[in-house]
Amino acid sequence: MSHPAPRTVGDASEAEVLELVFAALQGTSRAVVGPGDDAAVLAVPGERMVVTTDTLVHGPDFRLAWSSPHDLGVKSAAVNLADVAAMGARPTALFVALTLPDETPLAFVSEFAAGLREGCDILAPGCAVEGGDLTVSDTLTIAVTAVGVLEGRAPVLRSGARPGDVVAVTGELGAAARGLALLFDRFTDEDGAPVPVDADTLTAAERDDLAAQLRPQPPVALGVAAAEAGASAMMDVSDGLLLDAGRLARASGVTVALAGEWSDEALRGGEDHALLATFPPDAALPSGFRAVGRVEPRGEDSVTVAGLADAGPGGWDPYRDWDARRG
Amino acid sequence: MSHPAPRTVGDASEAEVLELVFAALQGTSRAVVGPGDDAAVLAVPGERMVVTTDTLVHGPDFRLAWSSPHDLGVKSAAVNLADVAAMGARPTALFVALTLPDETPLAFVSEFAAGLREGCDILAPGCAVEGGDLTVSDTLTIAVTAVGVLEGRAPVLRSGARPGDVVAVTGELGAAARGLALLFDRFTDEDGAPVPVDADTLTAAERDDLAAQLRPQPPVALGVAAAEAGASAMMDVSDGLLLDAGRLARASGVTVALAGEWSDEALRGGEDHALLATFPPDAALPSGFRAVGRVEPRGEDSVTVAGLADAGPGGWDPYRDWDARRG
Repeated sequence: MSHPAPRTVGDASEAEVLELVFAALQGTSRAVVGPGDDAAVLAVPGERMVVTTDTLVHGPDFRLAWSSPHDLGVKSAAVNLADVAAMGARPTALFVALTLPDETPLAFVSEFAAGLREGCDILAPGCAVEGGDLTVSDTLTIAVTAVGVLEGRAPVLRSGARPGDVVAVTGELGAAARGLALLFDRFTDEDGAPVPVDADTLTAAERDDLAAQLRPQPPVALGVAAAEAGASAMMDVSDGLLLDAGRLARASGVTVALAGEWSDEALRGGEDHALLATFPPDAALPSGFRAVGRVEPRGEDSVTVAGLADAGPGGWDPYRDWDARRG
Repeated sequence: MSHPAPRTVGDASEAEVLELVFAALQGTSRAVVGPGDDAAVLAVPGERMVVTTDTLVHGPDFRLAWSSPHDLGVKSAAVNLADVAAMGARPTALFVALTLPDETPLAFVSEFAAGLREGCDILAPGCAVEGGDLTVSDTLTIAVTAVGVLEGRAPVLRSGARPGDVVAVTGELGAAARGLALLFDRFTDEDGAPVPVDADTLTAAERDDLAAQLRPQPPVALGVAAAEAGASAMMDVSDGLLLDAGRLARASGVTVALAGEWSDEALRGGEDHALLATFPPDAALPSGFRAVGRVEPRGEDSVTVAGLADAGPGGWDPYRDWDARRG
């Protein structure tokens, strides 16, 4: 018996592919004008909005052998929602520019859209895909732009940390990097090419690490909570705590002094999408944040760990690090 | 004598590539918070904004043999600004997700950013690139998201045309398609691969057609003018007048009756980025719009041309048409 080949994007018209997307997203739009006109129209209570964009590219950023289409939808939503949260904003809309090779199965489109929907539902209820664009390309690329509203709050920038502030984080640190290492170490063939994950061979902890890499669930709702609790500075930790804390420290003209012991993955791993924030000493940390250090006047180093400067590469550079690991 | 190879994106760190972008865009930001934090913060007077996204992919959408990096910057801005204009909004910000092959010369990045800047300056003064993302990819892809503000005006949708309204257009129709035909007919080698344009071999009219294809200058400012003049419906004409007028007619539940004679390129060519609008019979058309027909009660066809239904393919389907022309 032979199976008929699954229908692909190349077999279908643009209208047909779009219909699959709309079907998966049906009923989610909360915009004044949702998908279907030249542009979406969004309400912006408080007259200030935040906008951010982040791209996932097949090869450097994900492999279809490892990520299901649904995983990719969740991750595409999550990484962008985390950036909106890091400003203290509430995400309201995603715009998704999807470039698909002709040989992409039509089922990919439906499952990817369902993942986007689930990512929004879980991480930022009320946020939905309100527009996008479909294009043919040899490389599967997912460029998402996320929009959020400040509702009268001031944005929480990287530059507001002051000496004496408490440094706090929420979300997992290091798990996504452990998950990535697991994929490269255990789910590649002798030529280094990715092979499908066999979850039965994994411990529960390894499965968690893999989920943090493939289907991250950043603490999006805690962005608004931090802003309301008076956070003085905040950012998304996506290139390793060390590198990102250094960015916050330089933007604020301070030193971030991290206390305690840290794993190498937590300090240098990428793609955590945790939130790093600073709070005035008298602020009550929102539930979910844990204190990890103190803001000090700017010293010789932008970041210290248990009182010591940290040597060596500071974290994740997507150009350098992924290039070195290309299959 | 040997020339040193030009430095490429693959030779540089992400920070270095970003610096080139920032240098080219310096001084343009008008945002509350511009590039450099987790997200930009934009002011939205009137509490309603429009957002649209459009992608250009190397191969299907442009060829580096034909388009200079500067051309690509202008075009990436223009096609998105036109969609903002078509809602009656004033563009305020672009977000650019750029995926670059390692072998891309660093000069490409600077010249492309300068083109984005010029596109904004010429077409939508006050609009600037307020954020973006750089990623490595085997395929050069430019995904732009454009944001605009309505400043208290109602958005002009596709669905508002009423019988008796005047149908009007502004901008060129057909020139971009003629420019594209010129490229395929005259600037390809025997295998159909693109070769650089020799402008000396072109007439002035041909150079204009080529510019309409490579560096379009849609009538962005006329979007707000049309909204202020009371336009009942409006849209960007990017897939040919026939197909796009049909979309407006179906959204509005009317028939669009186009008068006069039309070239095949004007009716069916893609990428014009003209504006098609309808105005109540007593409205004064804004300077730059020309009346081209009348809105009628919904008849058998969504669009008629000089009283006749138009047979044959209705316009540009980016999946179908570009696939057929792939080199």
